[in-house]
Amino acid sequence: MMNSYGNLFKITLYGESHQKAIGVVIDGMPSGILICEAKIKSDLLERQSGAIGTTPRKETDDFEITSGIFNGHSTGSPIHLTIVNEDVKSRDYEHLKKQPRPGHADFVANLKYKGFQDYRGGGRFSGRLTAPLVAAGAIAKMILPFEFHHELVQVGTLTDMDQLDSFLEKVIQKGDSVGGVIKITVKNMIVGLGEPFFNKLDSEIGKMMFSIPAVKGVEIGTGFSGISKFGSEFNDQIIDESGKTMTNHNGGISGGISNGNDLVVKVFIKPTSSIKQEQQTFNFESGQVDPLIIGGRHDVCIARRAGIVLENALAIVLADLYLINKVYQ
Amino acid sequence: MMNSYGNLFKITLYGESHQKAIGVVIDGMPSGILICEAKIKSDLLERQSGAIGTTPRKETDDFEITSGIFNGHSTGSPIHLTIVNEDVKSRDYEHLKKQPRPGHADFVANLKYKGFQDYRGGGRFSGRLTAPLVAAGAIAKMILPFEFHHELVQVGTLTDMDQLDSFLEKVIQKGDSVGGVIKITVKNMIVGLGEPFFNKLDSEIGKMMFSIPAVKGVEIGTGFSGISKFGSEFNDQIIDESGKTMTNHNGGISGGISNGNDLVVKVFIKPTSSIKQEQQTFNFESGQVDPLIIGGRHDVCIARRAGIVLENALAIVLADLYLINKVYQ
Amino acid sequence: MMNSYGNLFKITLYGESHQKAIGVVIDGMPSGILICEAKIKSDLLERQSGAIGTTPRKETDDFEITSGIFNGHSTGSPIHLTIVNEDVKSRDYEHLKKQPRPGHADFVANLKYKGFQDYRGGGRFSGRLTAPLVAAGAIAKMILPFEFHHELVQVGTLTDMDQLDSFLEKVIQKGDSVGGVIKITVKNMIVGLGEPFFNKLDSEIGKMMFSIPAVKGVEIGTGFSGISKFGSEFNDQIIDESGKTMTNHNGGISGGISNGNDLVVKVFIKPTSSIKQEQQTFNFESGQVDPLIIGGRHDVCIARRAGIVLENALAIVLADLYLINKVYQ
Amino acid sequence: MMNSYGNLFKITLYGESHQKAIGVVIDGMPSGILICEAKIKSDLLERQSGAIGTTPRKETDDFEITSGIFNGHSTGSPIHLTIVNEDVKSRDYEHLKKQPRPGHADFVANLKYKGFQDYRGGGRFSGRLTAPLVAAGAIAKMILPFEFHHELVQVGTLTDMDQLDSFLEKVIQKGDSVGGVIKITVKNMIVGLGEPFFNKLDSEIGKMMFSIPAVKGVEIGTGFSGISKFGSEFNDQIIDESGKTMTNHNGGISGGISNGNDLVVKVFIKPTSSIKQEQQTFNFESGQVDPLIIGGRHDVCIARRAGIVLENALAIVLADLYLINKVYQ
Repeated sequence: MMNSYGNLFKITLYGESHQKAIGVVIDGMPSGILICEAKIKSDLLERQSGAIGTTPRKETDDFEITSGIFNGHSTGSPIHLTIVNEDVKSRDYEHLKKQPRPGHADFVANLKYKGFQDYRGGGRFSGRLTAPLVAAGAIAKMILPFEFHHELVQVGTLTDMDQLDSFLEKVIQKGDSVGGVIKITVKNMIVGLGEPFFNKLDSEIGKMMFSIPAVKGVEIGTGFSGISKFGSEFNDQIIDESGKTMTNHNGGISGGISNGNDLVVKVFIKPTSSIKQEQQTFNFESGQVDPLIIGGRHDVCIARRAGIVLENALAIVLADLYLINKVYQ
Repeated sequence: MMNSYGNLFKITLYGESHQKAIGVVIDGMPSGILICEAKIKSDLLERQSGAIGTTPRKETDDFEITSGIFNGHSTGSPIHLTIVNEDVKSRDYEHLKKQPRPGHADFVANLKYKGFQDYRGGGRFSGRLTAPLVAAGAIAKMILPFEFHHELVQVGTLTDMDQLDSFLEKVIQKGDSVGGVIKITVKNMIVGLGEPFFNKLDSEIGKMMFSIPAVKGVEIGTGFSGISKFGSEFNDQIIDESGKTMTNHNGGISGGISNGNDLVVKVFIKPTSSIKQEQQTFNFESGQVDPLIIGGRHDVCIARRAGIVLENALAIVLADLYLINKVYQ
Repeated sequence: MMNSYGNLFKITLYGESHQKAIGVVIDGMPSGILICEAKIKSDLLERQSGAIGTTPRKETDDFEITSGIFNGHSTGSPIHLTIVNEDVKSRDYEHLKKQPRPGHADFVANLKYKGFQDYRGGGRFSGRLTAPLVAAGAIAKMILPFEFHHELVQVGTLTDMDQLDSFLEKVIQKGDSVGGVIKITVKNMIVGLGEPFFNKLDSEIGKMMFSIPAVKGVEIGTGFSGISKFGSEFNDQIIDESGKTMTNHNGGISGGISNGNDLVVKVFIKPTSSIKQEQQTFNFESGQVDPLIIGGRHDVCIARRAGIVLENALAIVLADLYLINKVYQ
Repeated sequence: MMNSYGNLFKITLYGESHQKAIGVVIDGMPSGILICEAKIKSDLLERQSGAIGTTPRKETDDFEITSGIFNGHSTGSPIHLTIVNEDVKSRDYEHLKKQPRPGHADFVANLKYKGFQDYRGGGRFSGRLTAPLVAAGAIAKMILPFEFHHELVQVGTLTDMDQLDSFLEKVIQKGDSVGGVIKITVKNMIVGLGEPFFNKLDSEIGKMMFSIPAVKGVEIGTGFSGISKFGSEFNDQIIDESGKTMTNHNGGISGGISNGNDLVVKVFIKPTSSIKQEQQTFNFESGQVDPLIIGGRHDVCIARRAGIVLENALAIVLADLYLINKVYQ
């Protein structure tokens, strides 16, 4: 339940990885906005695998918009976008119930949904659900005057991204996986997005970012590494009447409200849970810890594909707060 | 607007630091729960200042419950709890409009509310609003079978909390401030709290934690420092049929749902923005960067008081998801 | 639970008739609106009893606003308004559990809240809760450019309101009660309020009106009596470019959206459940139907006081849709 | 925007009558519920035209469920159900902008959506949107232990439904249309559904019923005609320990909460706005009132098809309150 996000710009996600389709309903889109399908397509392409360290398994993310657009513009009615799942020959996933995979949701899903969940390919917990989220974010950007960037700034212990391919080759050879940190920056921000107390800009960012599978940490601006700074250093001094600050330790947010400086969010993506190496974990059938080998072809570093997901998820947050802000201007 | 949190266990916060009262309405409390006012009082006491590095300014947080309780038990109607603001002789805060304080919300509030905000003492953005939040959290705990802990684990560069007093004395002498990291742990968790996609347990924690003033980073379990771990290390291997894991890098959450292991959340609190030292910042009257001296007596390390705030805020999140979970059991 | 209404202009009601206070938190009020307390007072006065057929028991509805207003204007923070309940010497209400009053909520409340409800004076179900609702509606009107009217159009079989006093005297003498129909009209409406599918203007009116105690019917425009009309008669023909229609059978709403003509809502208020006459009803203690005499002094025709309640409740609906509409203009 | 309904059992409707598809996402369905597609089909069939007085234009309502069901049971994830719109050769609807049809939403939609709405076939305002609503209601019933009935009790001035066909033949011959009153009854109700103040059972019924196109009046139990009764007659006296009442003027709801007696709701459906007769109405192009002839084949008495729509819409309301009630039992 509760697969919706937003107050005015509201999205509802549905789908499981091995059922007929996944999709999203986008509610609250103002009428008369030019909808550029090519932009949606290019954002979805960026999410796809292909680079070293990503799964060799390819999915097409062909989407169809079935409502809410007329003559190329939004009508003001809900936009429904759907992506048909290709006919995957489902392998036997029954063993996931017996021996849930470490790091995955198999165990909790089985208890929570009493065994009725669609466990194939991760089901509802699959990263595949981020595809309609990316599409919704692409549409969110169409009403926003901001400029979005994302950047992979660390993978495992590696911070020099020029060496990423060779670093990941070694991880692949070990049959292991690795996490990453992604930095998202939004430029040309305006002052005033975010509502106290619980719909603060950072609160909503926190909620949205942690909704993305594998996210285990979120920070605004300098974040945790600011612990070594004193207030005299951390305080961002205002230097002109637009509110521009000399430093940006606060990442563009003051008191939960955008302050006009660049919005900076950093997100930690944990190492992919599915690894090639044999693992030890509890087997509910045998009643003891047994070895487990996970088949299939997985992303060794999902962080490499997650940038556009986080960026577009952030756009959804901003679209909602942007519309709310219009009420009170 | 939007000063409410929760779906079934829902709280609405009101108040500004220098108006007549602050308070909270708690909606969705099941009827027949014994309400222990002494417990609310003791949690509020823990939030108060007194220790070295906290403000010498003392507020009493005497509260009154005006509805929702009858014969010592919840009636099932909204509980309204109010804390009267003592009659503070408001100093002249007008200058905050001219020269907004670095790190504070003065600048954004003035734009967002067009100068109509109550700027006295931080107004709506004051840490004082965390008092009713603490009270609401104390009430939330009354329906939860879990065990809550919080711990200050780092202040500035200091990690040995035995030396905290002397460390803070030095910060006080410099007229500066310092941030901290707080770790909250919830034991005796059950499996199943959290709802995909956007009401995941970690999503709601992210939303709630970033709602607390001065929070600039949130992580679940090992968090950002897990970047140096490979999947084979980060994966928490299940060791018995209750779902207990050998390690707890995932901080008790799998796929956004509590997995029965301890829930572990770490939060970064930035250095207090109000410092004694002179700062440089833009003066909207003079049109240039001018020196600024902030008067008053402030917390040098607000993190020292924030533990109970974060813990109780977390309890509010859990109470809501706990009630929702009851529907689907 | 769920004692809130609205999306942007959101109110949360709390209180029970015999506890310390009742009140309302109004969230989403734009900043900078002049708040006229005299207007709130005069609307509350209009709700009070005094006329023939209303209870001789007088309550003062002195209110206090404890937050959200500064220098006479709204600050943009939640407005909290509270009304202290006078110290009522509570009679023994225990018998209501034994022999629930016909037409009242005693029986359902006792089951739903497992006997923990505050049953004194109707508790949460008391008409007293409409006082903060009236206050909230008075505040809602301060942001609306519309003109509100209400009118009692029928009481029992009486439609000539000039004879109302003598009609009610007879009902009083019989120790009985009587219902009424109230018509609310809003003039100077704009086109565009209401959102399909479920936040239509009439949907929200339906929700709000049925929230008022004793309401058992709601109609828009001509309503049920339009059953005898053919489409050629019922259709409101547009006569100028402002959208003005020759007739107004649709009561100012087309497709759930305000069409600029007068908004017309009619509401049926059932006869007051508390009557002086002896009634027969089940006694849970004796296990049989027994006579019941309800003490106290009650409104014989609550409809006589309900006009301002319905009018102001409608204003709350309009304020919310009005703010939402601003987003999409 | 805001095309969702419900708190726990939540539906989101999308679609316009002449775009590719219409559909619904049903969120909050408990896992493990047997989903009977034949039941959905039979409810959709009942909504279809065919009887005298309904449109000769036939739509197939073939639906597909693309997610949320696995091995014939609900998985606990959102259920997405879609109905493809047949390829309608859209006639020129441009004239609706020039001369909006009386009784329809053409005029308000054009203003509200600035001319970007999909006006073909009524677009978002088409009765076609009730098809996915019926489907969602059929699914809602699968978790409810209640027994649903609906009945057409009046059409125009006719109350003897045996003469309906001949009555409607006359209306057809006049090229006119006629309204109706539908009564929905739910048996085997439980005590306790509905939450004060704004999520009362009757409040939610009001909201939902007025969301259905053409509804202009809603009453609970005896409703408006109870105006002629005194309290001594209207009060429903309890006659046994289950709460059964001798009469049921309150229609099964006391204080906004179901009281265990039959739930009785009556709804007024206005005469279909599209009529064959020539009408007079404003022409925005000519700047004067001109004759208008509406082409196409329309329902002369839409009330004849609306029973199952209202019944299933009511089931959605009950499903939501039923799940909420489980939390507090």
